Amino acid sequence: MAGTKFVYFFGGGSAEGNTSMKPLLGGKGANLAEMASIGIPVPPGFTISTEACKAYYDLSEEKLFELLRPEVETNLTRLEELTGKTFGKGPNPLLVSVRSGAAVSMPGMMDTVLNLGLNDETLEALAGLTGNRRFALDAYRRFIQMFGDVVMGIRAEDESGHEYNPLHRAMDEVKEKYGRGLDTDLTAEEMAEVVEACKATYKEYTGHDFPQDPKDQLWRGIAAVFGSWNNPRAVRYREINEIRNLIGTAVNVQTMVFGNMGADCGTGVAFTRHPGTGENRFFGEFLMNAQGEDVVAGIRTPEPIERLNDLLPEAYEELLGIRKRLEEHYRDMQDIEFTIEQKKLFMLQTRTGKRTGQAAVRIAVDMLAEGLITEPEALLRVPPNDLDQLLHPRFDPEAEKTVDVIAQGLPASPGAASGQVVFTAEEAEEWNARGEPVILCRIETSPEDVGGMHAAEGILTARGGMTSHAAVVARGWGKCCVAGAGGIAMDYGKGEFRAGDVVVKKGDWISLNGSTGAVYLGKLPTVDAKLTGPFGKLMELADKYRRLGVRTNSDTPQDTEVAVGFGAEGIGLTRTEHMFFEGDRIVSFRRLILVAEKVKEVKNRIAAVEDEKEAAAIREQNQDVLTQYNQALSELLPLQRQDFEGIFRALDGRPCTIRLLDPPLHEFLPHDEAGQQEMAETMEVPVETIRATVEALHEFNPMLGHRGCRLGLTYPEVSDMQVRAIIEAAVNVKRSGVDVEPEIMIPLVGKAEELKISRERAEQVIQKVFEEQSVDKDEIPYKIGTMIEIPRAAITADRIAEYAEFFSFGTNDLTQMGCGFSRDDAGKFLGEYVKMGIYEKDPFQVLDQEGVGKLVQMGVELGRKTCPNLKVGICGEHGGEPESVKFCHRIGLDYVSCSPYRVPIARLAAAQAVAEEKLGE
Amino acid sequence: MAGTKFVYFFGGGSAEGNTSMKPLLGGKGANLAEMASIGIPVPPGFTISTEACKAYYDLSEEKLFELLRPEVETNLTRLEELTGKTFGKGPNPLLVSVRSGAAVSMPGMMDTVLNLGLNDETLEALAGLTGNRRFALDAYRRFIQMFGDVVMGIRAEDESGHEYNPLHRAMDEVKEKYGRGLDTDLTAEEMAEVVEACKATYKEYTGHDFPQDPKDQLWRGIAAVFGSWNNPRAVRYREINEIRNLIGTAVNVQTMVFGNMGADCGTGVAFTRHPGTGENRFFGEFLMNAQGEDVVAGIRTPEPIERLNDLLPEAYEELLGIRKRLEEHYRDMQDIEFTIEQKKLFMLQTRTGKRTGQAAVRIAVDMLAEGLITEPEALLRVPPNDLDQLLHPRFDPEAEKTVDVIAQGLPASPGAASGQVVFTAEEAEEWNARGEPVILCRIETSPEDVGGMHAAEGILTARGGMTSHAAVVARGWGKCCVAGAGGIAMDYGKGEFRAGDVVVKKGDWISLNGSTGAVYLGKLPTVDAKLTGPFGKLMELADKYRRLGVRTNSDTPQDTEVAVGFGAEGIGLTRTEHMFFEGDRIVSFRRLILVAEKVKEVKNRIAAVEDEKEAAAIREQNQDVLTQYNQALSELLPLQRQDFEGIFRALDGRPCTIRLLDPPLHEFLPHDEAGQQEMAETMEVPVETIRATVEALHEFNPMLGHRGCRLGLTYPEVSDMQVRAIIEAAVNVKRSGVDVEPEIMIPLVGKAEELKISRERAEQVIQKVFEEQSVDKDEIPYKIGTMIEIPRAAITADRIAEYAEFFSFGTNDLTQMGCGFSRDDAGKFLGEYVKMGIYEKDPFQVLDQEGVGKLVQMGVELGRKTCPNLKVGICGEHGGEPESVKFCHRIGLDYVSCSPYRVPIARLAAAQAVAEEKLGE
Repeated sequence: MAGTKFVYFFGGGSAEGNTSMKPLLGGKGANLAEMASIGIPVPPGFTISTEACKAYYDLSEEKLFELLRPEVETNLTRLEELTGKTFGKGPNPLLVSVRSGAAVSMPGMMDTVLNLGLNDETLEALAGLTGNRRFALDAYRRFIQMFGDVVMGIRAEDESGHEYNPLHRAMDEVKEKYGRGLDTDLTAEEMAEVVEACKATYKEYTGHDFPQDPKDQLWRGIAAVFGSWNNPRAVRYREINEIRNLIGTAVNVQTMVFGNMGADCGTGVAFTRHPGTGENRFFGEFLMNAQGEDVVAGIRTPEPIERLNDLLPEAYEELLGIRKRLEEHYRDMQDIEFTIEQKKLFMLQTRTGKRTGQAAVRIAVDMLAEGLITEPEALLRVPPNDLDQLLHPRFDPEAEKTVDVIAQGLPASPGAASGQVVFTAEEAEEWNARGEPVILCRIETSPEDVGGMHAAEGILTARGGMTSHAAVVARGWGKCCVAGAGGIAMDYGKGEFRAGDVVVKKGDWISLNGSTGAVYLGKLPTVDAKLTGPFGKLMELADKYRRLGVRTNSDTPQDTEVAVGFGAEGIGLTRTEHMFFEGDRIVSFRRLILVAEKVKEVKNRIAAVEDEKEAAAIREQNQDVLTQYNQALSELLPLQRQDFEGIFRALDGRPCTIRLLDPPLHEFLPHDEAGQQEMAETMEVPVETIRATVEALHEFNPMLGHRGCRLGLTYPEVSDMQVRAIIEAAVNVKRSGVDVEPEIMIPLVGKAEELKISRERAEQVIQKVFEEQSVDKDEIPYKIGTMIEIPRAAITADRIAEYAEFFSFGTNDLTQMGCGFSRDDAGKFLGEYVKMGIYEKDPFQVLDQEGVGKLVQMGVELGRKTCPNLKVGICGEHGGEPESVKFCHRIGLDYVSCSPYRVPIARLAAAQAVAEEKLGE
Repeated sequence: MAGTKFVYFFGGGSAEGNTSMKPLLGGKGANLAEMASIGIPVPPGFTISTEACKAYYDLSEEKLFELLRPEVETNLTRLEELTGKTFGKGPNPLLVSVRSGAAVSMPGMMDTVLNLGLNDETLEALAGLTGNRRFALDAYRRFIQMFGDVVMGIRAEDESGHEYNPLHRAMDEVKEKYGRGLDTDLTAEEMAEVVEACKATYKEYTGHDFPQDPKDQLWRGIAAVFGSWNNPRAVRYREINEIRNLIGTAVNVQTMVFGNMGADCGTGVAFTRHPGTGENRFFGEFLMNAQGEDVVAGIRTPEPIERLNDLLPEAYEELLGIRKRLEEHYRDMQDIEFTIEQKKLFMLQTRTGKRTGQAAVRIAVDMLAEGLITEPEALLRVPPNDLDQLLHPRFDPEAEKTVDVIAQGLPASPGAASGQVVFTAEEAEEWNARGEPVILCRIETSPEDVGGMHAAEGILTARGGMTSHAAVVARGWGKCCVAGAGGIAMDYGKGEFRAGDVVVKKGDWISLNGSTGAVYLGKLPTVDAKLTGPFGKLMELADKYRRLGVRTNSDTPQDTEVAVGFGAEGIGLTRTEHMFFEGDRIVSFRRLILVAEKVKEVKNRIAAVEDEKEAAAIREQNQDVLTQYNQALSELLPLQRQDFEGIFRALDGRPCTIRLLDPPLHEFLPHDEAGQQEMAETMEVPVETIRATVEALHEFNPMLGHRGCRLGLTYPEVSDMQVRAIIEAAVNVKRSGVDVEPEIMIPLVGKAEELKISRERAEQVIQKVFEEQSVDKDEIPYKIGTMIEIPRAAITADRIAEYAEFFSFGTNDLTQMGCGFSRDDAGKFLGEYVKMGIYEKDPFQVLDQEGVGKLVQMGVELGRKTCPNLKVGICGEHGGEPESVKFCHRIGLDYVSCSPYRVPIARLAAAQAVAEEKLGE
C-alpha cells in the first residue's frame, strides 16, 4: 500500500489522469482530468482514487489517512498555487467541493459536500472578496447544512415518526419568523441568523462546535464520501442495477465556483443531444443564481437551455462550442454540468449521457451518418435490451384522443404505462410483489425511493425537471416517467392527489404517456410498435452484419405475424401443448388421458399373446376404452391440423419447428376439488375416476417425469396424430400455393434410441399420409430432429445426430437439469447465490456459459462430427438475451429463437457479436 | 438366404459343429457336436441352426421350409446310413427326438417331441425288433401325447375352468377302467387300448387322423419348436432372466435311444460337481426303465447316481470316465444327461452346470488348486452378484434347534427364507407386489409358474428331485428352495397343506432352510455370513488382483463393523442426515427448521445495516428466534460428535468420507395432519406454525431443490456445527490412540464458487477447533472434497478441483439429473424403456456407461488435469454393481464405495476387471 499513488491532480490545461482511468478515478474524476487536458475550462482540483476507497475498507480510516495525508497536502498546495487562493485563509480563500464518483455512474446515490473551507474567518473574507455578504452567508449555511447532514449524519424524527433534517428546520424557523416564503427572500441579516441557528443545532446534535479547521473539514468530508460507498441506499442501487466488481468510489476535491453569486451567475445541466428522443439538438436546463445541486434536486423548476442565449449570450456561445468539442472528442452524446460564475463558464462534469432506447437508436444511426462513428461502433452503441422500450406497445393514439388529460407534466422518460396509484415506495414494492401494476406518485423522488420506482410501471412526480432524480433514474431503466406535473397536488396523508377537479385515490387506475407528459384517468388500450425510421435503419445494419439466424417461438398465427413483422426468419419452437387447452379440445384430450393407462395395458396384453383369436378377445373385452381413446384422437386431429395450417400460412414459406407434446399428462387435469368436480360433470364420469387418474399421474419431480418423447413412446398414437396433423396441414397449405417447411421436433430425447424409435414411427406416418394424398416426398421438404435439453443428450450428441437433421437446444431445461435447479423452486436460494457471487446472473435469465454453455458447445461439436450439415439452434428463453445470443454466435449455432418481441433484440445482439469480432481484430 | 447352410450333422466320431458355435447351433446342439467330435458316445443327429429360426419369423414357415427341405433330406439320409436304420420303415425304424436348444439355456421353457417316426407300421417293426411290444406301444402313446400337446396344442378345460390335456385323460380313463395305479402297471393289451384312445382323442380334437407319414411328423415337429420360441412362457422367461439379443432356437433332430426298454435301461441327469455346495463329487440322479423327461419332470422320485454302480456297474464306470473327460475338456463343471439303452451308455447333453454362489466359489477355488484353470479364470468363474447368496444371513443355528421341523425335503437350493404361504404363482406375484414376502408351495412347479417363483422368497414342492424344475430354476436365481418334501400334502382347493398333524393355511408363516431341506412353522431369526473357506480364498485372490479400492457406505458403527469384516478399506459415504432422525435429535432439528428462514432474514437485515447500534437493535428484537436457532445447534453438536466418534473407532484408522447435510429441510417435517399435530404437541407450538413451515418449504421438484451445499450456504451455521462435530470427534478419537482420517464432503456442488465458499468457511471452523484444542494441523490429516452429482459439476470439474482434495461421484443423482429421470417416478416408463431396448438395463441399477459414465469420465479427467493427486471415488449404489465397478476400474477411479453386504461383490468385480484385461492381452 505504502508508495501507491492515490491522488491525481487536474487543472491549468493539464491533468495526471485521463478518461481511460475510470476504474481508478471514477467516471467524474477521469472525465474532469480528460476535459482539463484538452483545454476545456474546468475548476482545478484533484481526485483521490478508488484504490484509496478500497484501502479505507481493507485497512481502516486511520491507516489510510496516514498514507494519504502527504499526497493530499501536496495537492492542496498545488491547488493554492494554481488558483492563487488559500485554503482556510483570507483574503482570497480557497473553497472546495468534495464529491464522490465511481467508475459507473450512480446518480444521487452518494454524498457530496460543497463550500468546504468556509469558517467564521473565511466567511468574512468571501464576503469582502465578493462584496456580497448575503451570498457568503448563504454559502456558509449551505455548507453547515450539508456537512451536518452528510458528514455528521444529523437526523431527527417528528412526532409521527418521519425523519427530517434539523438543520433545515432551523432555517425554516427563521424563515417563518420573518415571514419569508423562499430562501432567496431572506436578507443578509436574516441569513446570518440562519447561520447561527444552524451552528447551534449542529452543536446540539453533535455535542461539538462546528469545526473551524478547514483541513479537519476536508478529512471528515473525504471519510464521509468513502463511508457513503457502502450505505444501504448505494448497496441497493448497485444490486438493482447489477453493478458489480467495483472497488469503491473516488473522491473529487475541486475548487468551488459559484453559480449563486448574483444575477450574472447560474448553473445548469445539459445533454449534447436529446436523451429521450435522440434528436440532434442541445438539450438542457439551467437556473440563474443557483448552486448546482438546486437543478438536480428538482426543487425549483429550471429554464430550458436556449434561454441562456438571451441572458448570457457569450457564455451560451462558449457552451455550444464546448458541446461540439466534447462530442467530437468523446464521439458520443455527453451529459454535462456547468456553472457560470460572474459570466465565466466552468465545466464541472461530462460523462456519456444516459438515454432511452429510442434515443440510443437515433443517436447511433445519426452519428454513423455524421461520420462520427463506424458501423460496428453504431451497432454496439445500442444495448440490445433497450430496444425493448421501442418494441412494446404505445397507447392507441385513437383511444388516447378520446380521453381527457387530467394533468400535464414533462415527458421525462418515454413509453406508456397504466397502473394503480400508490404514494410510497414501500407500497409500490408490496403491490408489485402481489402482481398488481402500480404508478408511483410522488411530489419528487429521492434516492430512498429507487426500490419502489423499480417496482412501478411508471413514475409521476409533481415537481422537478427533465433532469430531476425521477427523470434520470427512470430513463436509465427505460421506464415511463412524467415529471414536474405542476397541476397535481399530492396529499400523502389522505392517500390521494388532486388534478384540478379530479381526485385520484390510492388504488385508482391512471395512465402515463412518458413521450408527451400526459396523465390520464383509467387504463388505456395500446397498439404495437413498428420498425421504421432510425430503428429500421439500425435493424438493416444489424442484418448486414449478423451471421446468426433469428427465429421466433410462437404457437399462434397472430404471434407469428408479429414476429415476422419484427424480422423473424421462421419459427424455432411451436409448443403444441398450448393448443390442447383451447376450447373443447381439453375435453377430448382429458377423455384420452382418463383411459390412456388402461389402453396401454390392453395393448401390452395383446402384444403378449400369440394367438390372434385371443388378441381379438382382449380387444373385444376392452372395446369401450379403445373406442374412447381413438375417438379422442380423431377429434383432436382436425383441430391440430387447422392450428398448423394457420401457422404455416403466417410463415409464408419460412421453416417451422414444431415440438410434439411435451408436458406430463397431469398438467392437463385439474388438481383442485372444484375443477375436478366440474370436469366430472362435463365428462359425465364419477369424480373419483378423475381423482384417481390425477393421483395415478402424480409425480414427485414432474420436471424429470413422464413427459416429452417418453410420452410419445409410451402413447405413440398421440404422436402419430400430431405428426399426421402436421403433414396433412403441410400438404393442404402447399396445395393452396404457399411453401411449407415443417420440422418435426421430438422433445426430451436423452438417448439415441429414443429418437430412433420415435423417428421411425413418425416416418411411417408421414409415408402413409404421402401415399393417401398422392404427394411426392420432395414436395414437402420436412425434417425430423430433436430438442437437446437433457445433459445426457448433449454429451452423447454424436449418437443422437445419427437420427437427427436438426438440434434445438432447450436451454431452460438444460439449465434445470445441468445445474440441478428447479426453476419453480430455485428462487429460494438463487437470489442469495447471485448476491454471494456464486452465479453472476440468474442462469435462467442469462445463459450460464461456463456450465450449460459448455453442454451446448459439446452438443454442437459432437452433433456436427456425426452430421456436418446438422442445423443447430436454441429455443430456450436465452435465445432473446443479448449476452446469450452472442455466445450462440461464438459457438457456431445456426440460429436463435426467441419470443416475438425479442426478435429485434436478438438481431441486434447477433450483429454486435460480429461487430465485437471486427473491433477486436 | 438361399445358399445359407442351415443344418449341421453330428455323430460317428465327428461333427460339423463345435462348442464355439453356440449362437448358431444353440447350447445343446453345439455341445452335442463337440462331444461327438471328441469321441463321446452321442446318438447321432443333426442341428437346424438358430438362423433358420430367425428366417422362420422373418420369412414364413413355407418359404423357410422350401429352403430347408433339401438339407434336412440329405442329413436324414446320412443319419439312416450311419445308424443302419430307416426313417418311417421297418424292420429297423429310425426314430428321432426333436428338441429346442437356444444359445442360452432356458430349462423347460420350450417344447420337445420324442419318438418321432413312429406310426402304425414302425410300431410293429419296433415291437418286433425289441421283442417288447408293450415298450413299443408305450413309446407310441408317448409320441401321440407329446405330438398332440406340443405340435397340435390340444387342450381342454374342465367344468371349473382348469386346463387339462385330453390325451392324458384318455390314458387315465383306461388306467381307471383296469384299476391300474401307475403307468407301468398297464399291460401290453391295455397299452394298445391307450394308443387307440389317444388316436381317437387326437382325431376328436384335430379333426384328422394321427399323421402316419414320418416326414410330415418331422416338419410339423420342427415348426412347433420354432413356434415355441415366442410362446408367452418363453418370452416371459427371457424377460425375467434378462436374456436378450438371441435370434432364436436351434432344433436338434437326434436318433432316439431308449431308457425305457426294460430293466437294463435307464436315464439320468448329473452334475460333475455338486451344484449346491460345489463339492468335487459326482452328483446326479437316474431312473431305471424310464425316458429322459421322466427325471426332469419330477414325477417319479429318482435314485442317487451312486446306486447305478450297483445296478449297471459297467455303464457307471464309463460314466465316471466321461465325467472326467468332460471336465478336462470343458474346464468347468458340467450338467449332463444320459440314457442307457440295454446297457449301452449314450450322452444326450452336456452344458456348463448352473450352480449356487457357494458352489461357484468352491468350484473356482478347487479347479484353480487342481490346476484346471488359471487365477484370472478362477476369478471370472464367479458372477460377483452370486456372492450375495453367501453374504446374506442364514438362520440362527441356535434358534433353528429350538423349533420343530414340520417337513423335510431335498436341499434343492441353499439359503434361508421366511414368508407367508401361497399356493399359486398369481398369488405369489400379487402378494409380493404388496410387499408381503411369500413362500410359493406347489406339488410340483412347471414353467407356467416362473413369474410366481421369481416373486417368492422361497419355493417348497412336495414332489420332484434335485433336478426338478423347481430346483433348477431356483438355483439359477440363488433363491432358496426345498423340493420333494414328500411328507407334505398340498390341498389347493382348501388353500392349505398338511405336514403330519400340522395344517398350514394360506397366509401362515413358514421358513425354509434350502441348505438342509428343513421346513419350519413360523419365522426364524437369522445370523450373519462369514468370509471363510473357499470364499475367503477367493477374496484373497481378488485382493491380489484388484487395483480399485473398495469402501463402504455406512452411517453407523454397526454397519461399519460389518463392512470392515467384509473387507471395506474405509467409508466412502456417511450420510449425516439419517443421524438427525434418531431419538430427540429430530425435535432439536425441527426447532431449528421452524426458525431457520426467519433467522436468515434477520441475518440479512443485520448485514445490510451500516451501524452496529442498529444491528444490535435488530438482534435484540429477534432474540427469541436467534436463541432457538443457536440452542438447537448446540443440542445437536455433542450428539453428532458422538456419532462420528463411534464411526471413527469402528474404522480404526481407515479413511472416512462424511457428507454434510444433504436433503431438503422439508424431509425432516411431518407432511400428514396427524404427524403435524403430534409435532405441535411435542414442541408446544401451534400446529399452524408447522403447517405454514411445511408449506413454505414445499418444492415442486425437491430433487432439484434447496438441498446439499445450497442449504449449507444459506444456513452456514448448520454446516459449521457439523464440521465442528467431525473435527472434535476426530481430535477425541485420535487422543484415545486411534488414528483418524476424516474427509469432509460438501454435497451437490454445481459450481466451483459453491465449494470455494463452503470450503473457506469449513476451514475457519477447523482452524478454530484446532486452536481451541491446541492441536497441530498434521495430527488430524483431514481432507475437504465434494460430491460430483450434478452434470454441471462433472463438466466443470477442472474448476471445482481447484478447491477439492477428493471427488466422490454420486451416480444416483448424476443419473437422475444427467438422464432427466426422477428415481421416484421413472418406474412409469423405465420398465417399458428396457423392454423397448432403449436402455439395456435400468440405469439406476446398472450405471449408464455411455451417458452418465461419460460424465464421470469427464469429471475424472478434468479434475485430475487441475489436481493430479485428486482422490476419486464413487458412492452411488452403482458402486456395488459388478459391471459398474468394472467401468470404474477402466476409467481409473481410486475406489468404489457400496453398502456393506456388497463389499465382497465389489472386491471380486474389481479383480475381474483386472482379470479381463489380463485375459484380453
